[in-house]
Amino acid sequence: MSPTDHPFDPSLDLVIEREIDVPPHLVWAAWTTPEHVKQWFTPKPFETAECEIDLRPGGIFRVVMRSPEGEELDQGAGCILEVVEHRRLAWTAALGPGWRPVESDLPFSAIITMEPSGAGTRYRAVAVHGTKALKDRHEEAGFQEGWGAMTDQLVEFARRL
Amino acid sequence: MSPTDHPFDPSLDLVIEREIDVPPHLVWAAWTTPEHVKQWFTPKPFETAECEIDLRPGGIFRVVMRSPEGEELDQGAGCILEVVEHRRLAWTAALGPGWRPVESDLPFSAIITMEPSGAGTRYRAVAVHGTKALKDRHEEAGFQEGWGAMTDQLVEFARRL
Repeated sequence: MSPTDHPFDPSLDLVIEREIDVPPHLVWAAWTTPEHVKQWFTPKPFETAECEIDLRPGGIFRVVMRSPEGEELDQGAGCILEVVEHRRLAWTAALGPGWRPVESDLPFSAIITMEPSGAGTRYRAVAVHGTKALKDRHEEAGFQEGWGAMTDQLVEFARRL
Repeated sequence: MSPTDHPFDPSLDLVIEREIDVPPHLVWAAWTTPEHVKQWFTPKPFETAECEIDLRPGGIFRVVMRSPEGEELDQGAGCILEVVEHRRLAWTAALGPGWRPVESDLPFSAIITMEPSGAGTRYRAVAVHGTKALKDRHEEAGFQEGWGAMTDQLVEFARRL
């Protein structure tokens, strides 16, 4: 499977696409190094309180956000699904570490792809849902704004790597 | 991760372990080739009506059983999680193809490991659940009998490969 041939279903999936002026290996580093993720992941003025990544299929993917008032928002541990260095990272909120199914209010899987594009990266983040109702709920909760702001922060951070 | 270092939680997981007098690559072939799976997967007198396997992370894993009365039992498509040739196959009922979360009555992930043991295989099939209630339900639905019979049929089939 090439990094971009994931079949996109507009009735079930949400996507952020961006041409980024940073090469794929730096975008990859920003996404897969917990100390880096803590610097950019959470849209301001929220912050990332904790990040744990065990970068292998079945490994943990966990981010805890913190509100400006200091409240921590722990959405539980997700699971790394696929690791294709510098090209594709997939993880899901529907499984925990060790591929253990979890109850989730908003189960989705995230497929992050990074394709070389000139000196930069064609970046794509897809959120995959099981039903249109869940996709709609994610959209109404501010997917485009939230993941858009995340991506802005990712680019700004990765430029400094 | 070695094939057997999956952390087993007896309060959440169910397991079948067996020393098999067939080498790992034949057990692997029996588990990963749809035409083979159709010969052994479903405990008799039920049969396997259909089997579809796309052997890559994110690929489909789907088996349709058929009762002696001819009723087809389609539990929906699962998703391949990990493919380590001749050693470990993981799939889940909690995601569909492309890692799309699905509603499942009995969400679990299956981790099948095959370790060389003399001329044969130390075989382990673990069903991983999110809660004790789901583990108990799987157990009460006949996990040991069902997966035990599957494993007997798997061994009998693999010996003829």
